[in-house]
Amino acid sequence: MSVRVGVLGATGAVGQRLIQLLDPHPDFEIAALTASDESAGHDYREVAKWRVDAPIPEDVASTTVVETDPSAVPDDVDLIFSSLPSSVGEAVEPAFAEAGYVVSSNSSNARMDDDVPLVIPEVNAEHMQLIEVQRDERGWDGALVKNPNCSTITMVPTLAALDSFGLERVHVSTLQAVSGAGYSGVSSMEIIDNVVPHIGGEEAKMESESRKLLGAFDGAELSLHDAEVSASCNRVPTIDGHLENVWAELADDPSVGDVEDALAAAPSADLPSSPEPLVKVFDEPDRPQPRMDRMLGGGMQVAAGGVQETPAGVQYNCLAHNTIRGAAGASVLNGELLARDGWL
Amino acid sequence: MSVRVGVLGATGAVGQRLIQLLDPHPDFEIAALTASDESAGHDYREVAKWRVDAPIPEDVASTTVVETDPSAVPDDVDLIFSSLPSSVGEAVEPAFAEAGYVVSSNSSNARMDDDVPLVIPEVNAEHMQLIEVQRDERGWDGALVKNPNCSTITMVPTLAALDSFGLERVHVSTLQAVSGAGYSGVSSMEIIDNVVPHIGGEEAKMESESRKLLGAFDGAELSLHDAEVSASCNRVPTIDGHLENVWAELADDPSVGDVEDALAAAPSADLPSSPEPLVKVFDEPDRPQPRMDRMLGGGMQVAAGGVQETPAGVQYNCLAHNTIRGAAGASVLNGELLARDGWL
Amino acid sequence: MSVRVGVLGATGAVGQRLIQLLDPHPDFEIAALTASDESAGHDYREVAKWRVDAPIPEDVASTTVVETDPSAVPDDVDLIFSSLPSSVGEAVEPAFAEAGYVVSSNSSNARMDDDVPLVIPEVNAEHMQLIEVQRDERGWDGALVKNPNCSTITMVPTLAALDSFGLERVHVSTLQAVSGAGYSGVSSMEIIDNVVPHIGGEEAKMESESRKLLGAFDGAELSLHDAEVSASCNRVPTIDGHLENVWAELADDPSVGDVEDALAAAPSADLPSSPEPLVKVFDEPDRPQPRMDRMLGGGMQVAAGGVQETPAGVQYNCLAHNTIRGAAGASVLNGELLARDGWL
Amino acid sequence: MSVRVGVLGATGAVGQRLIQLLDPHPDFEIAALTASDESAGHDYREVAKWRVDAPIPEDVASTTVVETDPSAVPDDVDLIFSSLPSSVGEAVEPAFAEAGYVVSSNSSNARMDDDVPLVIPEVNAEHMQLIEVQRDERGWDGALVKNPNCSTITMVPTLAALDSFGLERVHVSTLQAVSGAGYSGVSSMEIIDNVVPHIGGEEAKMESESRKLLGAFDGAELSLHDAEVSASCNRVPTIDGHLENVWAELADDPSVGDVEDALAAAPSADLPSSPEPLVKVFDEPDRPQPRMDRMLGGGMQVAAGGVQETPAGVQYNCLAHNTIRGAAGASVLNGELLARDGWL
Repeated sequence: MSVRVGVLGATGAVGQRLIQLLDPHPDFEIAALTASDESAGHDYREVAKWRVDAPIPEDVASTTVVETDPSAVPDDVDLIFSSLPSSVGEAVEPAFAEAGYVVSSNSSNARMDDDVPLVIPEVNAEHMQLIEVQRDERGWDGALVKNPNCSTITMVPTLAALDSFGLERVHVSTLQAVSGAGYSGVSSMEIIDNVVPHIGGEEAKMESESRKLLGAFDGAELSLHDAEVSASCNRVPTIDGHLENVWAELADDPSVGDVEDALAAAPSADLPSSPEPLVKVFDEPDRPQPRMDRMLGGGMQVAAGGVQETPAGVQYNCLAHNTIRGAAGASVLNGELLARDGWL
Repeated sequence: MSVRVGVLGATGAVGQRLIQLLDPHPDFEIAALTASDESAGHDYREVAKWRVDAPIPEDVASTTVVETDPSAVPDDVDLIFSSLPSSVGEAVEPAFAEAGYVVSSNSSNARMDDDVPLVIPEVNAEHMQLIEVQRDERGWDGALVKNPNCSTITMVPTLAALDSFGLERVHVSTLQAVSGAGYSGVSSMEIIDNVVPHIGGEEAKMESESRKLLGAFDGAELSLHDAEVSASCNRVPTIDGHLENVWAELADDPSVGDVEDALAAAPSADLPSSPEPLVKVFDEPDRPQPRMDRMLGGGMQVAAGGVQETPAGVQYNCLAHNTIRGAAGASVLNGELLARDGWL
Repeated sequence: MSVRVGVLGATGAVGQRLIQLLDPHPDFEIAALTASDESAGHDYREVAKWRVDAPIPEDVASTTVVETDPSAVPDDVDLIFSSLPSSVGEAVEPAFAEAGYVVSSNSSNARMDDDVPLVIPEVNAEHMQLIEVQRDERGWDGALVKNPNCSTITMVPTLAALDSFGLERVHVSTLQAVSGAGYSGVSSMEIIDNVVPHIGGEEAKMESESRKLLGAFDGAELSLHDAEVSASCNRVPTIDGHLENVWAELADDPSVGDVEDALAAAPSADLPSSPEPLVKVFDEPDRPQPRMDRMLGGGMQVAAGGVQETPAGVQYNCLAHNTIRGAAGASVLNGELLARDGWL
Repeated sequence: MSVRVGVLGATGAVGQRLIQLLDPHPDFEIAALTASDESAGHDYREVAKWRVDAPIPEDVASTTVVETDPSAVPDDVDLIFSSLPSSVGEAVEPAFAEAGYVVSSNSSNARMDDDVPLVIPEVNAEHMQLIEVQRDERGWDGALVKNPNCSTITMVPTLAALDSFGLERVHVSTLQAVSGAGYSGVSSMEIIDNVVPHIGGEEAKMESESRKLLGAFDGAELSLHDAEVSASCNRVPTIDGHLENVWAELADDPSVGDVEDALAAAPSADLPSSPEPLVKVFDEPDRPQPRMDRMLGGGMQVAAGGVQETPAGVQYNCLAHNTIRGAAGASVLNGELLARDGWL
C-alpha cells in the first residue's frame, strides 16, 4: 500500500512534525505541501523556519510549496493532513472535503460538530462511521475527520481505560509545553522563570472533547459521556510534553492496583503508529516527567504514574508528547485508520 | 518596642530570607545567629553561601555564628526564629522552648501536634491561645509555635475567605518553585525543560495542615475542619512563587462575583508585615503569575485570579512568594503576633 | 527644576522601563506618551501589554496615548525620549528635532552619524558639544542625541577605565538576556534549553560604537579610538542582564590589582541616575551574575569581576541591566545631562 | 572482535552515558560495573539514579555493582573505562594499570603527565605511542590513557583543522551545559534565569590540554604547541551541549571560504564511533545551537558555523555534546583506537 498524502500548513510547528513522521512512513508518500500564498512557489527549505531537532528530509526540502487550495493539489492525492490555524481551517477544510479529498485534521474548528468524527483510534475507532452521516448530510465525496486537542489526547486514553469502573467526574490540571502554542506562540519573556495559568479556550476544549471521545455512537447519532470534566490549564517552561494531574471519581471504588492494571491493559490499535502498550505505567511516584518520558514509543505512548487513592476515587499523573501523540502523530494515526478501513 | 531575636539555621535558604526581613524590621533586633557546629565560630559572611538577590546586611555579615543550642544563645533573646531541617528541629526546638525561649518555627516537625499552634495571623490568630495548653502539658516557660508549609499558606487564606459559603471539598494542583526545596534541593538537570510531579510528603501536609488552620478552637481543644482536601504537587522551573489551581466546592453556590468580593474582603491583621489587602484579586484571567506577582506586598500578599464557576463550586488560581509569605515572612508575622499579644 | 518630557514608543519593552524610571523621577514630569496609530486615542493601560514586574503607575495608566508625530505632542514638552524601532526612529526623530524638540534616543538609527552625539555621561559627556555642530549643519532648533546599544554600554565604562593603560585590542563575548530583543523578540521555543550564537547586527554595533564612545573630540570633529574591537554575541535564557567576557590588551601591562583599582575608581557623573561607584568590582571569581547583580544601583551600576592576567593583557567579566543601564536608564541619564548643561 | 570492558564509576552522569554507548556497541561487552563501597553488592538499577532520557538496558539494570578496586574486577576484562572524580581516579587508575588493565579514562587527573597519552583519535592518534614510554617508565603491564576535558574536546578538532594556516593565538568563550558538572553539580537556584561566569579549573584545562593535543610527538617526547590559548568559561542553563565562541589568529590569513573548507575536510578516524564528517559546517550564522545540534552524528560530531574574518584571523562558533563527544563517547572512541591498534 502506498497512499499519496498532502500536508496543509506544512511550514508550521505541527506541519514540521507531520513531515518528520510522514517522510519515513511505510505506507504514506508525501505528494503535496501547502502553505500561505507568500510561501507558495518557493522550495520548502526556503520558507519553513525548520525547528525540529533533526534535519529536514532532503527530498522534502526541495519540494515546491503550493497554495492551500484544492485546485493547487494534484487530484491523485488520497489523503490530506491539515494543521492550519482554526480560522483558516474553517474555510479551507470543507472545500477540500467537497472536492473529494479525505482530510485528517488537527485544527480545532468543527471538532464538536455532530457529524464530524473526533477520533483517537485506540479509544473510539468506531466513531469513524460518522463519515457516512457526514457524507449524507453534506453531500461530500471526501470527508473531514478530526483528532482532539493535545491536552485532551493526553488524558482521554487513561480515562477510557478507567471508564469501566464507572467514571463520574474528572478534575484535571495541566502543565503544558510551549510548543503547543506554535513556534512563536509563547515569548521567552512570558515564560522564563514563570508559569501562565491560562490558555485561551483550552479548558472548554478539554471538557467538551473528552465527553465526545468517551461518548457512545449508535450508528446514527453520538451521545456525549455524562461525566463532569473540569479543567485548569497552565503553560510551563518545557519545550515538549504535556503533563496532567488527574482526579477521577469512580463509582466502583477500585484499588490502586486495579487502576494501574486497567491503565496498563489499555489496548493499542493495530496500526503502524500505535504504541504497544498504549499506556506505560510507572511505579516511581515522580514519573512521568516531560523531558524524561515524552519520547516513549516514539512520542506516541501515553505515560501514567503516581496513582493514589483519594476520598472519591483516584489521583494520578499522565503525560504525552503534545506535538507527536497530541497533534501530528494523532492525525497520522487517524490517517492510518482511514486507510486501513477503506475510507480513502 | 525592640525585641531581641535569634535565628536558628541562619545560613539556609529560609534563614537568609529571615535575615533579609529581620534586619530592617521596625520592632526586631537580630541578637543571635546559629548554624551547624562546623559553621559556629565563623563570621556569617564566611559560612553563608548568600543567594538572596540583595547584599548581606553589613552588620549581619560580621556577626559570629554560634552553635544551635540554647546554651549558646544569650538569655536576653526574647524570640527565636527557626528554619531548621525538620529532623534537627525535632530535637532542638523543644530544648529551646524548655529553656524559656518562645520559638516561631517554619520547620515541618510538630505542626500537627495537638498542643502546638499552627498559625497564619490573618486566618486563625485565636489558635495562638493553644500556648497555654502547651505550657500546661509540657511544663515549658517558653513556647513552640508553627507556621504551615509554603504550599499550604498559599491556599489557606483564600479558603478561609470562602468558608462562609460552606466549604465542603478542595482539589488543588500546585506548581511550586525550586527555592521551596532549599538551595541545593533541586538540581538543574532535574528541572530545566522539565516538571517533576511529586514532592515528598507535600500533599499530606497540605491536606492535614489546611484542616487544622481552618479548624475551630474552643479554648481547650482544636477540631479539624471537615472539608476534604486532595492535593497534587508539582515542582516547576521557577525560582520563587508557588502557583496553585484550586477547586473549591461550596454548599451555598455563590456567584463568581460573590467569590471575588469575598477574596478581596479577606481581612489583614494589624501587624507590621501583614499586607493590605490580604488577597489581591486579578480580573485578568492569566494572572497571577509567579515572576510578575510574587513580590506583591513585599512578598507577603496572596494573589488570586481566574475565578470561574464549575459544576460543583468555583475554580481559581492563587499565588504567594514561597520563601517570604510561605516561610520566613510567615514566621516573622507569627513573631509579630506573639510580641503584640504579650506571649514573649 | 521640572522638565516636561514625552516618550515616543511608550508601549514597547523599553518604553515601559522609561515610564518606570520617569514616573518617580525628581526632575522629570511625563507630559506625553506616543505609540502607533492604532494605539493612539486609547488609555495607556489598554494598549500597553505591561510586562515590568511592578504595577503601572496609576496616573500613567489613565493617560491618553497620542500618535508618534510632532504635531500630536504639546509644544511645552522640553525633552523627548525615544525607544522606537530604528526604521521608525529614522523617519520620526529628525522630524521632532526639526520641530524644536531635544530628543534623547535609544534607537539604533543615526548612532554613528558624524554630528550625532553618542554619549554615556560617565564616559564621554564632552561629546554632547557635538550638538552645536549638528545644529549648524542641520539647521535644527532641537537636537538628536543617542545612547549606545545595550551590549556596548555594558562594556565601555570598563574599557574607559582601562584606557589610561593603553587599550590596544578588545575581544568580547556576550551572553545577552532575552529582554534585549523586546517582548516578542525571542520565542520560548528558540531559547529554552538553548543558546543562539548570533544577534543580527549586534557585533558590528559593539565594534563601531565602542570606538566612537572612546574617541577624542576636538570641539569640531570626533575621531574614533584606534583600538581594534572584535565581538561575538550570544542570546541566552536570562530575562534581564547582559554578561560579557572581555579580553583587553593593554600596552602598559598593569597588574590585576592595578586593573581592579582602575575599575573601582571609574568616576560617576553628578547626575541623579548615575550610580556611585560607577563600577562595582567583585572579588569572587563567579560574579557578577545576571540574576544576582543586575539590579545593583537600581539597575544603573556596571558590575565587574574575575579579573585575571592573560599573555597580552587582562580578562574580566562585566554585567549591566540591559533595559535599565543599557537602554531606558541610559536615555534618562542623557536627558539629565542635557537638562543640567542647558541644552533644553 | 569482542572486547570485555569494565566501567569505573558507573553510577555517575558520565558513567550512565558510558553504559548507554557500550550496551549496543558492536565490539564491546560490559563485563564489570564499579561504584562506591556503599553501592557495591547491589543491582545497578537500585544504586544508579538513572537520568539519561532512555531506559536502563535490562541486562545492565540487573548487574551487581562491585567495588572500585582491581581485585573486584574479573581478570579477563580487557579494557577499563573510568569516569571517576579526579581525586578518586588519581588513586585508583594507576592501581588498575599496574594490575595489567588498560584504562581509557575521562577523569581529569594525570592528563598533563609527560608519559600519559591525551588523545582525540581524529586529531592526534599518534600520541597513543606514548604508552610505550609510560610502560618503560612505570613498569606497568597495563596503561593509562586520557581523553581531554569536555570544553577542550569541543574546540580542538576545529583548531587542528586550521593549524596548517599557522595557528598563533586562540581566545575562546564557552557557554557550557549543566550536565558537565554532573547530576548534582549545578543547583537549579544557581542557574535558572542566570549565567555563572566561572567554572573552577576549567580555563586552565582548556589552555594546557589544547596545547598538548596539538603538540608534536617525536616518538620519545611530546612538545606542546606554541599557540597561546586564553579561555573564559561560563555555565549557562542548557542541559547538554557546550557552545564555544572561538577567535583563531592565523599566520596565513586564509579567507572565510578557506576556513570553512578546512573545517569541513577535517578527517574522521576509521573507528565505529567516529562521525563522518568529523565537523559539520553550517552556513546559517545562528548555528550551531545546543538543543538543535548536539545530537548530530549520535552526539559525536562537532558542529561549527558563523565563520567570519576578524582583523587578526577568524571568529567562529563550535559545539559538541559534552557528555557524549566530550566525555563518555571520547573514552569509548579511545577504547576503539586501543583495541584496533593492538594495545589491549
